[in-house]
Amino acid sequence: MTKPRVVETTFYVRYAETDQMSVVHHAAYVVWFEEGRSAWLRAMGSNYADFEASGLYLAVSEVYARYLAPALYGRRVTVRSRAEEIRSRTLKFCYEIVDTESGQALVTGYTRHICIDRKGSVARIPEEWRELLAG
Amino acid sequence: MTKPRVVETTFYVRYAETDQMSVVHHAAYVVWFEEGRSAWLRAMGSNYADFEASGLYLAVSEVYARYLAPALYGRRVTVRSRAEEIRSRTLKFCYEIVDTESGQALVTGYTRHICIDRKGSVARIPEEWRELLAG
Amino acid sequence: MTKPRVVETTFYVRYAETDQMSVVHHAAYVVWFEEGRSAWLRAMGSNYADFEASGLYLAVSEVYARYLAPALYGRRVTVRSRAEEIRSRTLKFCYEIVDTESGQALVTGYTRHICIDRKGSVARIPEEWRELLAG
Amino acid sequence: MTKPRVVETTFYVRYAETDQMSVVHHAAYVVWFEEGRSAWLRAMGSNYADFEASGLYLAVSEVYARYLAPALYGRRVTVRSRAEEIRSRTLKFCYEIVDTESGQALVTGYTRHICIDRKGSVARIPEEWRELLAG
Repeated sequence: MTKPRVVETTFYVRYAETDQMSVVHHAAYVVWFEEGRSAWLRAMGSNYADFEASGLYLAVSEVYARYLAPALYGRRVTVRSRAEEIRSRTLKFCYEIVDTESGQALVTGYTRHICIDRKGSVARIPEEWRELLAG
Repeated sequence: MTKPRVVETTFYVRYAETDQMSVVHHAAYVVWFEEGRSAWLRAMGSNYADFEASGLYLAVSEVYARYLAPALYGRRVTVRSRAEEIRSRTLKFCYEIVDTESGQALVTGYTRHICIDRKGSVARIPEEWRELLAG
Repeated sequence: MTKPRVVETTFYVRYAETDQMSVVHHAAYVVWFEEGRSAWLRAMGSNYADFEASGLYLAVSEVYARYLAPALYGRRVTVRSRAEEIRSRTLKFCYEIVDTESGQALVTGYTRHICIDRKGSVARIPEEWRELLAG
Repeated sequence: MTKPRVVETTFYVRYAETDQMSVVHHAAYVVWFEEGRSAWLRAMGSNYADFEASGLYLAVSEVYARYLAPALYGRRVTVRSRAEEIRSRTLKFCYEIVDTESGQALVTGYTRHICIDRKGSVARIPEEWRELLAG
């Protein structure tokens, strides 16, 4: 059995992502989770844009984030993402966000997804995508 | 000749809209301009959602904003919007954003728009919409 | 014993909050939760801006959201918020977001908070604020 | 006389940056301009975070953007930034955003800035920063 593959993506914190607490606003990490998913799919040789072009969407059904330490403007962060619990119609992504230089854990969390078609009906994840998601 | 109609919409500054300068981030006002346009259309008895449902879009071709004083979390702001220079395929909206309580001017600006269809081709603004836009 | 007070705030969905699935992006609801908290505090006769001015912050330590149905541009949404599990240094807010006209439940979720001071150290929630939070 | 130095930064479009027109929302480019400025300062061997730590801010006094073609999710974009009109208290940044692969111009624009201190008073840009900004 293969371990789920972890994909990393690293970028600078954007000034617009801070708030008046002088740290990154907590909603920004939810966007970073999504960017982690996008990077994960690109690393797998695919692209979520292609998935949508085929008429399917991985809608977000749940989001959870636990905040351990604040990310700061001027620093780089690394999002580590992996796919888990890949079922016929649903899957889960898990994330860990760290400060790139220090390695300090900033946020952990997950998102659950459900495959839907253009009308919003639940749909099966196509076999080739399930294989790709399973690594 | 009628004066262009000014429509006001008022709301609280959101915490997420602040940045580490402890004031509202400058990109947030561009979103408030858009909310001003939406409110303007609703006040005219229409809805931009209906416009899009008919297969047309008022794409933004230009944005300009001049920042006079910072908006602050905990305060209410009022966006005053009016349509101008309504042509067959283009139009302009002008905005003034003020602190609701003090009346202090915070930001002024404008957006220019071009009517496009679903394929992205330039399209004529339908006559009924031009009449609505002209007040 | 008193039931926790539920405070409602209602606003139009902003166009900028949509994504290319033609529904509101899932991170926007996290911002709406925050706006729900702000409205809750205002309804209690206080203001989170005052809390921060006193040198204390209610930092977000956890966020959870469950997505039931998508919010749409052109519609109004209502955020219902209530404070729960008010401890000496932590508290929880629970949220329900519904489509204002239809009453359809869109998202439920919660946030957990920890009181910190300007240096980021954990601090006691002042007695007057605990009383206010407890309704 | 030296030509103003152009600094490039390249990144993937984020899904959260799209709207229901299926293109990047026009306010996102204003955030990308800012990320271009941040990258420009980093390339000059400095960091805007250090500038703020010294008690000064380059507040945005004007923003202008002209939209030529839409950026798309799944693509990479490159922001080209350069500093211009560096005065004792103000400066201007100019931007060009292109699709990285095709080189197609997407957006051009500028921002004007004024140097202020922590109290919001206009301040002189320190000599070392003016030299750095002048390349």
